[in-house]
Amino acid sequence: MSKQKIYRPRPVSGFPEWLPEQRLVEQRWMDHIRKAFESYGFCSIETPSVEELDVLLAKGEVDKEIYAIQRLQADEADKSESRLALHFDVTVPFARYVAQHFNDLDFPFKRYQMQRVWRGERPQDGRFREFYQCDIDVINVDHLPLHFDAEIPAAALECVAGLDIGPIRLHISNRKILDGYLAGLGIEDRVPVIRILDRFDKIGSDGVMAALTGELGMAEELARKAHALATIQTSDSSFGAQVRALGVEHETLEEGVSELEFVMDYLVREVPDADILADLSIARGFDYYTGTVYEGRFTELPGFGSVIAGGRYDDLAGSYINRRLPGVGISIGLTRIFGKMVADGMLKTGPKTPTQVLVALPSEERRELAAETAKTLRKRGMNVEMFHAATKIGKQIGYASKKGIPYVWFPPFEDGQPHEVKSMETGEQIAATPDSWTID
Amino acid sequence: MSKQKIYRPRPVSGFPEWLPEQRLVEQRWMDHIRKAFESYGFCSIETPSVEELDVLLAKGEVDKEIYAIQRLQADEADKSESRLALHFDVTVPFARYVAQHFNDLDFPFKRYQMQRVWRGERPQDGRFREFYQCDIDVINVDHLPLHFDAEIPAAALECVAGLDIGPIRLHISNRKILDGYLAGLGIEDRVPVIRILDRFDKIGSDGVMAALTGELGMAEELARKAHALATIQTSDSSFGAQVRALGVEHETLEEGVSELEFVMDYLVREVPDADILADLSIARGFDYYTGTVYEGRFTELPGFGSVIAGGRYDDLAGSYINRRLPGVGISIGLTRIFGKMVADGMLKTGPKTPTQVLVALPSEERRELAAETAKTLRKRGMNVEMFHAATKIGKQIGYASKKGIPYVWFPPFEDGQPHEVKSMETGEQIAATPDSWTID
Repeated sequence: MSKQKIYRPRPVSGFPEWLPEQRLVEQRWMDHIRKAFESYGFCSIETPSVEELDVLLAKGEVDKEIYAIQRLQADEADKSESRLALHFDVTVPFARYVAQHFNDLDFPFKRYQMQRVWRGERPQDGRFREFYQCDIDVINVDHLPLHFDAEIPAAALECVAGLDIGPIRLHISNRKILDGYLAGLGIEDRVPVIRILDRFDKIGSDGVMAALTGELGMAEELARKAHALATIQTSDSSFGAQVRALGVEHETLEEGVSELEFVMDYLVREVPDADILADLSIARGFDYYTGTVYEGRFTELPGFGSVIAGGRYDDLAGSYINRRLPGVGISIGLTRIFGKMVADGMLKTGPKTPTQVLVALPSEERRELAAETAKTLRKRGMNVEMFHAATKIGKQIGYASKKGIPYVWFPPFEDGQPHEVKSMETGEQIAATPDSWTID
Repeated sequence: MSKQKIYRPRPVSGFPEWLPEQRLVEQRWMDHIRKAFESYGFCSIETPSVEELDVLLAKGEVDKEIYAIQRLQADEADKSESRLALHFDVTVPFARYVAQHFNDLDFPFKRYQMQRVWRGERPQDGRFREFYQCDIDVINVDHLPLHFDAEIPAAALECVAGLDIGPIRLHISNRKILDGYLAGLGIEDRVPVIRILDRFDKIGSDGVMAALTGELGMAEELARKAHALATIQTSDSSFGAQVRALGVEHETLEEGVSELEFVMDYLVREVPDADILADLSIARGFDYYTGTVYEGRFTELPGFGSVIAGGRYDDLAGSYINRRLPGVGISIGLTRIFGKMVADGMLKTGPKTPTQVLVALPSEERRELAAETAKTLRKRGMNVEMFHAATKIGKQIGYASKKGIPYVWFPPFEDGQPHEVKSMETGEQIAATPDSWTID
């Protein structure tokens, strides 16, 4: 095997890979997020990495740059198999899961899912082809209480508050507000208008007016009225009064306003420290959201785009089952956030190993004693390595130092001597017994 | 979006998917395995799901039924991109990782990796196309101490001992023993002989003799001598005396015997409760193992094949870097074990949710009080759901019952009354305060 040609592997663009000290932080983040999700009673599910293409395309999602898979050695018999492709999010697989296991699930069904997803993106800053998403969703049969529209962002905000990633502002709106308001203004073709208003943060106030009157050819006054709604931003439910002051009346508008008031009141009360903003310009994608919509951005990097996103959908699973299953969910773009921190050198990385104690090996004769010591400490819940060879002690300490191991344990070098343990941080070395010593 | 044709999704053969109560157990297993790996100082890494085809094929691994990936909408520009494929194990990606990040890693490098892998297997019992493997490996530069050959199976045995999966026996040998012994017998073409001896557990003693004399045309006496070695099985290092009693001498044989003695002595001492067997018939695959080899099987289901496997390799990363990097590793076939338990109805599943306490909603007016109660319990570390609607209390209790939530909390229905909490297991209901109540 050894003397063949060397193939020097290159990093594959868009498929991130972390060093151990970075991965340790990523894993800590994932543990934290999982704990927050579970503290709200969301259960874990995982779906296969692949779905039938027909499932992925059932909602017409052809713009997601899907990766199809095929056996290298596929033969004739395989061609009749289902065409399979990697999932591009975990929302569509979740909807398929609920439809397929409908009779085995209890509703409202609250699940979280932390998996890799794949998209054939063109390589560029902050865009990955393989990345982790961390999602929570609730689905119920026929009717889903508004309670969940408030609980979902509260859980997500708790997740990100525990990560050392700088402030995130969560923009919240309700699709019914823009839609009902524009309907109240007598506008029939509302989607192009909403698309422009949704770009408020990118093109600014003047840009919005120019696009409405120019691109769409709206009358100045009508454009100004549409524009007025999209400028409303409040950090509590006071946006409602501002909307009503605009004097437009429509049933859908009123429904959207009162739903968003409920959500904002809940969030102000439950997560008072979070940075939330009722922002009536946001609309999110048109593929499935029908009510509440969420969009979280780095407060200090608004141009970076959304790192949290989600909303309420009337019936996502309807493509796969003849039941009405409304839901609401939110997705935390874990790799997008993590990758940005790494790229900007902002990530405080940890040690290179989970090891807390390195047990030194004084001599070959004392191997059994060292192993016994390591075993005792390990049984008491510590992460312990036994050094692998009876080399010079300086070299053994050097190994602990390089890997960031905080303690080095010395079993007695001669009979009758005590065990000792050295703190690599302070340099202090004290006598200790494996049965009772504890990490500070 | 709603009135389109319904596409009824079907389960995709070979891609397992678990219900929430099964996934909860799988996750508990993964947490346990991770904890055991970390307690020995292995650090986590993850590699991308895909590798360049040239990396996967650098060792000639064309028989692994590799899945290639391709963008559905690939255009001309993409055709010049690297050909990418899903990895079929995490050993080859690990070797590539070490070669690529060589200057950023500290050696000996001890990593664990728990990821999904993909193989285009024909569907059959116990064979999956997507499955989790949990691997530990150590790689060092130039020379890797034998210490790790002993530590690796100790960590793996500790992992499986903590899972409720029935006994597993770990068969251990060293490739140098069979090879050196057969060389000592003067056999030059040893691989076909080893392949037959390795099938001892499948074809039995008579089958081995018949294959050696029939298929290979070996003389009866020579075949008997070869066969004699493969029958040796001991649960400690006493196999050494039995090998030496056969009277064959060879340097490689002696090296293998003393290495295996070291490993067996360590394991007998360190994991005295584990079921280990020096089994000189086992050889494992020929692709990379060069010394110690491991193969764990269900003790009560020997025909099911291996659920743990690994061994020592001289230089796995040599295809990608001009350094000698010997290693040793072991892989736990998590999905293979878990899938078998599920298929046989042996899996003790958990509740359907991580929720520990359901806070009931007495009335719409008391929503804020209920939310406050849920928040207090959650802040104290519990997993808490607040019921989403002020429906009949019986229905709210029914929800807890269906999902296996152990406690239901009742905020005061009227002012001046106490909070109460009901144990769903005992039916007992007691007064309690959110600030101080603890789960038994």
